[in-house]
Amino acid sequence: MCAERIRRAIATVCLSGTLEDKLAAASAAGFDGIEVFEPDLVASPWSPTELATRCADLGLSIDLYQPFRDLDSTDPDRFAQNLRRLDRKVDVMAALGVDTVLVCSSVSPDAVDDPDRLAGQLATAAARAGDHGMRLAYEALAWGRHVSTWERSWDVVRRVDSPALGLCLDSFHVLSRGGDPAGFAAVPAEKLFSLQLADAPQLSMDVLQWSRHHRLFPGQGAFDLPYFVACVLAAGYAGPLSLEVFNDVYRQADPARTAVGAMRSLQWLEEALALRDPDAGPPLPPAAPPLTGWAFTELAVDGVSGPELAGVLAALGFTHTGQHRSKPVQLWEQGPTPGHRARVLLNASVVRPAGPGVASVAALGLESADPRRSAARAEAMSAPVLPRTRGAAEADLSAVAAPDGTQVFFTRTGPGGWPADFLPTGERPGHGTGITGIDHVGLTQPFDAFDEAGLFYRAVLGLEPQEVTELAAPFGLVRTRAVTGPDRAVRLTLSVSALRRGGWAPGVPEPQHVALATGDLVATASALRAAGAPLLPMPANYADDLAARYDLPPELLTAIREHGLMYEEDARGGYLHLATDVLGDRVFFEVVQRIGDHDGYGSADAPVRMAAHRHRRRP
Amino acid sequence: MCAERIRRAIATVCLSGTLEDKLAAASAAGFDGIEVFEPDLVASPWSPTELATRCADLGLSIDLYQPFRDLDSTDPDRFAQNLRRLDRKVDVMAALGVDTVLVCSSVSPDAVDDPDRLAGQLATAAARAGDHGMRLAYEALAWGRHVSTWERSWDVVRRVDSPALGLCLDSFHVLSRGGDPAGFAAVPAEKLFSLQLADAPQLSMDVLQWSRHHRLFPGQGAFDLPYFVACVLAAGYAGPLSLEVFNDVYRQADPARTAVGAMRSLQWLEEALALRDPDAGPPLPPAAPPLTGWAFTELAVDGVSGPELAGVLAALGFTHTGQHRSKPVQLWEQGPTPGHRARVLLNASVVRPAGPGVASVAALGLESADPRRSAARAEAMSAPVLPRTRGAAEADLSAVAAPDGTQVFFTRTGPGGWPADFLPTGERPGHGTGITGIDHVGLTQPFDAFDEAGLFYRAVLGLEPQEVTELAAPFGLVRTRAVTGPDRAVRLTLSVSALRRGGWAPGVPEPQHVALATGDLVATASALRAAGAPLLPMPANYADDLAARYDLPPELLTAIREHGLMYEEDARGGYLHLATDVLGDRVFFEVVQRIGDHDGYGSADAPVRMAAHRHRRRP
Repeated sequence: MCAERIRRAIATVCLSGTLEDKLAAASAAGFDGIEVFEPDLVASPWSPTELATRCADLGLSIDLYQPFRDLDSTDPDRFAQNLRRLDRKVDVMAALGVDTVLVCSSVSPDAVDDPDRLAGQLATAAARAGDHGMRLAYEALAWGRHVSTWERSWDVVRRVDSPALGLCLDSFHVLSRGGDPAGFAAVPAEKLFSLQLADAPQLSMDVLQWSRHHRLFPGQGAFDLPYFVACVLAAGYAGPLSLEVFNDVYRQADPARTAVGAMRSLQWLEEALALRDPDAGPPLPPAAPPLTGWAFTELAVDGVSGPELAGVLAALGFTHTGQHRSKPVQLWEQGPTPGHRARVLLNASVVRPAGPGVASVAALGLESADPRRSAARAEAMSAPVLPRTRGAAEADLSAVAAPDGTQVFFTRTGPGGWPADFLPTGERPGHGTGITGIDHVGLTQPFDAFDEAGLFYRAVLGLEPQEVTELAAPFGLVRTRAVTGPDRAVRLTLSVSALRRGGWAPGVPEPQHVALATGDLVATASALRAAGAPLLPMPANYADDLAARYDLPPELLTAIREHGLMYEEDARGGYLHLATDVLGDRVFFEVVQRIGDHDGYGSADAPVRMAAHRHRRRP
Repeated sequence: MCAERIRRAIATVCLSGTLEDKLAAASAAGFDGIEVFEPDLVASPWSPTELATRCADLGLSIDLYQPFRDLDSTDPDRFAQNLRRLDRKVDVMAALGVDTVLVCSSVSPDAVDDPDRLAGQLATAAARAGDHGMRLAYEALAWGRHVSTWERSWDVVRRVDSPALGLCLDSFHVLSRGGDPAGFAAVPAEKLFSLQLADAPQLSMDVLQWSRHHRLFPGQGAFDLPYFVACVLAAGYAGPLSLEVFNDVYRQADPARTAVGAMRSLQWLEEALALRDPDAGPPLPPAAPPLTGWAFTELAVDGVSGPELAGVLAALGFTHTGQHRSKPVQLWEQGPTPGHRARVLLNASVVRPAGPGVASVAALGLESADPRRSAARAEAMSAPVLPRTRGAAEADLSAVAAPDGTQVFFTRTGPGGWPADFLPTGERPGHGTGITGIDHVGLTQPFDAFDEAGLFYRAVLGLEPQEVTELAAPFGLVRTRAVTGPDRAVRLTLSVSALRRGGWAPGVPEPQHVALATGDLVATASALRAAGAPLLPMPANYADDLAARYDLPPELLTAIREHGLMYEEDARGGYLHLATDVLGDRVFFEVVQRIGDHDGYGSADAPVRMAAHRHRRRP
């Protein structure tokens, strides 16, 4: 690994839109080069020469032309026709100024099986391309008819032994079949022509469909891309890290956003590589400082929802302890000590789309061991840093925007920290109803942002994405995943409607929530009920079903029935929780007691909770 | 098969929403009964007794409670716990007034493999249920741990030999594994407790995921449901035909619409069954009369798009031949004889959402051998029949609404037919530019309507859905399928964005099109160009790629380049076509020449055409 930065490329097929849209997005995100996906060129009004000029103007190299399909054939006439087709594409490549074309292993019924004959045909093709200064990068498609492993493609390339024929290694094709990248060490560096990178979730499905629809950017899926790339680099590959992701969501999403997320995936990958070999490579971005807890959660409210939320916070046991010096923001606190305290800001200054009663999670205030370094890290990882309007006595709060628009503040709660922005009301936080902190915040994601968000929290904040769970919710399938700090001091849950939530259904979008922590939910629930908190009633059938499934203590079951609690358990412990009504248009509170080492979020109960929310809102 | 109508049921899991939404939808669509899916009851505020009352009020029986999972266990304590769980569910069933519970084969690691031990545990459970007058319907899940075929489930039921234990046969579980329903004949009728029906597309994926996300209603997929059900009925099953469809789209779609489509699927299935055995069963709905061609296509226009479309029709070689007697509708015609004539109506009277320049396909006029019978058929198949405002001299046009809202008219073009509604302008249609009819109409479907539409055209109009094709289009994956008459006198193409088309992209929704037929596209294109028709320019790269892929005659290639033609071919023939610009906001014309017996629609060219349309609209 040389000390210069590795070049970064992206295949145009990764991005939605026409070629113009794709180039603009790749350039703006800072890519060095592109792979030209042939159908994008075919559909473009630019001639190859015009495309080359346009790329040069944008500072983009063209690193690969791709793909050339079904080259070899047992039918000599067909093979001759395929060579003529190759000649035409070599003309296109010359006009583009690119010297390498990706040749996929054939999927055709007439594909050549015999290794000698296959090598002979590839040698012929390589010689023709080589005469024009072009090279063929041969790639084993995981579903190739006879060549479907990288070892088999290497066997062919080795047999041909032509400087115009080398390998294209594609992480999806290798890893989807369980291939071992350690074997790359046997390939001479000069035979490694091209490298294509894609991650993917671990799915049990036809590999072609998996590849065409569900690829992800590195760090978004289940593959070990750092190890894969380390093996390729160790074998001497010196070309660009190039992304090739076929994904149904990205295929229709804003390409400018996709490209930024794609760039972040390479930054994350390069950092993971550098951490394997700290002496090599250019300087790393600042490491993500540990996030040690929640400073606050900020809710955006308006003139209708603000008083409603304030009333609910009071009933939840919170105290209005501070008023912002320059903005209409209230600080509400609860908890016996600063280390066991939940803080909620009600912010009536956020400019929101019209509509009375809006309420949503506007910002997450996270305790960072080094807020300035957190912000520098975020900026280095292409996170949009937000402008702040500061008053004289206001703390320097660094904030970035998450993919769903939520503001993420890096801060420290202490003298000179953000609380100095608030003038004390004179009230002090107390034990309240037994709430001692924020367990997690649940953010419903825009349809296009779910996979992007997982990598955002991973690469920018250093949180770890957990497994994706699917819920059969009343109004459509919901996918959800947590992102957490190593010691769970910070937990977020991200959820998204897998298709979209039916237009007929009420209460779109799904509400967000703030989950407050308690050590004794039964006691807290009693206190909440006494204080008139708007607890969501749960159906008696739900408690009956719990009684059928679990051997719960009778007094707990009584409390579950009385207060509308929800419960689930696994081998690690139990999760006892309750929800309030939806407040304003799209936020509610949960109160959560974790029993033992339970690490879940009540996702099995979520469909029942959603139905209960629906019943409360039915006209 | 008895002469009474078979009862029709639907599992609540088929429908989106809460239990109240589902019951209302099932009742309104005319179902006789439901299967209660346990999670729907658990999430409901109704007690089981209240649910029973509500169902009775709606005229719905409760035919099955489902599912009970993981009954058997190699762990005696766990099995004892499972029996207690069953006891609780028997209490629920008693309150519901249902006597049968679906017991799925276990998927648990502790599932019992030994047939004798498994039979012993099921016998114990059946005896406990039987003591309360309840029955267990045992179903082999296709992914059951040890019991995954219906034969294996029948082996267990046979061994137990209890009147309280029988089979549930589910078409998905049997057919997804390639099971043969002919074997049902060996099962005594009294052991056939329950029947669940689902269709599915032929997919190559994990069977659990296939089942949970991609099931379809009968007639929407690739399974031979009529044969399956015929085998079950031949074995003596006398219970309801009950639908159990897990589908991600229906899970979030308007349940009232889903239920109507579900009912139509059973009507279609029953008709297919009756046609196998014409002497049995109640009277059939009127058969769909043959649709022998296109009478007209009607475009809705406004004050801006109307003159634009009229100008384009003139340039396409059409003549304004008639004016509607009572409405602002123009008739435009082209073609040498009535049998070789294309007719387009421009209707400025349709009430449309606001916006200047709207233009869309409002109605399809189809030639029916018996228009009144076509309409009666449609009504019998739950198609919404549209009210018509008739003037004195206006023909009796029967129309129904397709799932996307397009009006479908059944008519005959001839004396006394619909043309009598139009006062002649004095102009006569001529040879024009060589257009001789309508090849097909392309309708972009609302996201939720694609599978529903396929069965609508199949069951209501007697058209045959063809294979679903996926297109990697510039703004997202598009699925498309044709529905055609047996002799291709009527062709429609239906397309839908597989997820949704990115909100960032221009020109949403995708335009519809009317494809006009010619016998000589090169000649027609020359004439169109001379007349100033707004032909869509195609990129030179596209023609270059055609030249690389096909050995086309040089003069054809020249015409392709000159006129912006598109071409694709397969073993059956070629498809040569061109497109106009998008007119108004969402419609364009194609002109099509079919060569040989080509049966496609240029779908491989569609992404290039979409990119070209995007380029024309780029600011």
